[in-house]
Amino acid sequence: VRLVPVILAGGRGERFWPLSRRARPKQLLPLLSARPMLADTLERVRPLASPEACWILTARDLAEAARAAVPDVPPARVVGEPQGRNTAPAIALASWWARGAGAGAVAAVLPSDHRIEPAERFREELRRAAETALERGAIVTFGVPPTRPETGYGYIEAGEAVAPGSPFHAVAAFREKPDAATAERYASDGRHLWNTGIFVFPPEVMLVELEAHAPQIAALARDLPAAPGPGAEEALERFYESAPSISIDYAVMERSRRALVARAGFAWDDVGSWAALGASPEGADGAGNVTRGRALLEDCRGVIAFGEGGLIAALGVSDLVIVRAGDVTFVCPRDRAQEVRRLVARLETDDDLRPFR
Amino acid sequence: VRLVPVILAGGRGERFWPLSRRARPKQLLPLLSARPMLADTLERVRPLASPEACWILTARDLAEAARAAVPDVPPARVVGEPQGRNTAPAIALASWWARGAGAGAVAAVLPSDHRIEPAERFREELRRAAETALERGAIVTFGVPPTRPETGYGYIEAGEAVAPGSPFHAVAAFREKPDAATAERYASDGRHLWNTGIFVFPPEVMLVELEAHAPQIAALARDLPAAPGPGAEEALERFYESAPSISIDYAVMERSRRALVARAGFAWDDVGSWAALGASPEGADGAGNVTRGRALLEDCRGVIAFGEGGLIAALGVSDLVIVRAGDVTFVCPRDRAQEVRRLVARLETDDDLRPFR
Repeated sequence: VRLVPVILAGGRGERFWPLSRRARPKQLLPLLSARPMLADTLERVRPLASPEACWILTARDLAEAARAAVPDVPPARVVGEPQGRNTAPAIALASWWARGAGAGAVAAVLPSDHRIEPAERFREELRRAAETALERGAIVTFGVPPTRPETGYGYIEAGEAVAPGSPFHAVAAFREKPDAATAERYASDGRHLWNTGIFVFPPEVMLVELEAHAPQIAALARDLPAAPGPGAEEALERFYESAPSISIDYAVMERSRRALVARAGFAWDDVGSWAALGASPEGADGAGNVTRGRALLEDCRGVIAFGEGGLIAALGVSDLVIVRAGDVTFVCPRDRAQEVRRLVARLETDDDLRPFR
Repeated sequence: VRLVPVILAGGRGERFWPLSRRARPKQLLPLLSARPMLADTLERVRPLASPEACWILTARDLAEAARAAVPDVPPARVVGEPQGRNTAPAIALASWWARGAGAGAVAAVLPSDHRIEPAERFREELRRAAETALERGAIVTFGVPPTRPETGYGYIEAGEAVAPGSPFHAVAAFREKPDAATAERYASDGRHLWNTGIFVFPPEVMLVELEAHAPQIAALARDLPAAPGPGAEEALERFYESAPSISIDYAVMERSRRALVARAGFAWDDVGSWAALGASPEGADGAGNVTRGRALLEDCRGVIAFGEGGLIAALGVSDLVIVRAGDVTFVCPRDRAQEVRRLVARLETDDDLRPFR
């Protein structure tokens, strides 16, 4: 199979403050390795697809930083969206341009800021999904069997398997983030899977399905040039100006009879906060401490120490996140790391603190 | 009374790492105010004595930094000891030079790195001690009634009061740092006081007592010029070369019949670790957080946040010390702050971490 990775790298977010700031969102941060997560995403599929074959969609003001993060990807294939329009327009555009890869190519839409392990297993499943998508003219998404009643993720309800024992299932329904009781049920009923936001499809199948279920977006895509280049900038501007802001789940996947969900055998999480850095046993010491950058931990347990330059030293503390980034030091309990937004909100309202945002 | 403050500023120590490093010990750090503690010490007595009347004894390699910390003190009166010889030689030298202040002058030896509050009360008691020292030809030290069974301090056992109701007592004994059981007893028997290391005396009385109890030091002092100046450097070298390393407590106070101890009415502590910054209700917010430098604390209690530049942000943590100094961030529970030496010891043995010492 000829794989055309389409990496979505337009996210914003404050959950990794103080490392992340507006100009440097999560996918551009070296959270899980010494490379930015975007580069990790590219490396993960490199054995299946050369960087020259990839498309990267990001926000226009992040495009330069994204190009710097993945210098092997031709600059013209790193597309800066003039405005965020959720995933459906981005995937329509990528599908339009991915047709250039010719018959037999399969696009793989990959979020740029998730953890997926082990990479080898992921590639094997991605390859199988691409084959299945090609054989069946399907749009395959990946669903991960829940390991906990997570309320922070969307879910996919799997229907019948396409064949006995196959990991590929019909899609019964897409589910929004559930409340705690529903999440408990989802986590144990064996039918609900975490929605990874990964989609694998032949470009022309996606375009046909857009035509059927989101004709406005399909029509706008047809007005685009066949590839980026001189003049494309303006076309891009018009496209994003007119495109409705809608997710591919809602625009296509919930309605298409070509949707399949693959039960994933790899470990996945959305790296939702600093606490996620401690989610993988990889890289943790015997006491469950995870360190990035220089750290000196004495009698510490479960500490996530993330430093850019300098030294983080800690003594006798447990289950803390300690981040040092630029001119900010941030400390909080691991289980409250997602509340960092409260601090960012206070930075917003306090003029003296604005420079630290 | 004409007061001649003799401020001892030669201490070393690692308890305020990472802010303190070898070249910047505690007395040169702005721990309790925006000024270095040495400058706080000078300011505390300024209403009683002009900076021009002060002597400051420090280590030779700290002399320039000390002069910078107290620019009002004439540079020649900031004396850099070529080697540390404990307090007796330093006090002998200061007494010898303080004679220059003439009859009726009273020297007040003051450690440069302690917390004393309120300053006004301290000055009042210091003035009374100086009067008493002058009237009685005494060496008055201050003892603080213990507020807890502290094992980290030396104690003075007070004897009879010089007059009924007087705060001035004979000295029954000096006591080394006690074990926990002994400290419990000291804290409750009403006779034992914390040894502050403050001494108030007419210079000639100290010289006479040195003559009687530490004649070697007294003889060496007599070989010094009457004041610092050209040639004094060499004399200083010889003096410290030959002087025994011995404390004034041991050399004089334990043996002298002129020793008195004043029961102090001010609050005092030796600012022994980062935790001490939380010892005073002054400067704490409603949740007991003490911050220096820019800090943003959300839902925190009892946090000591000390930053040089930049921002310390914390969320949902309690009773932690968080320090950001230079290129080091340090986090530990308040009640383990004195263990910072363990980290410094590890910096010693790890070549990679040596730069952070």
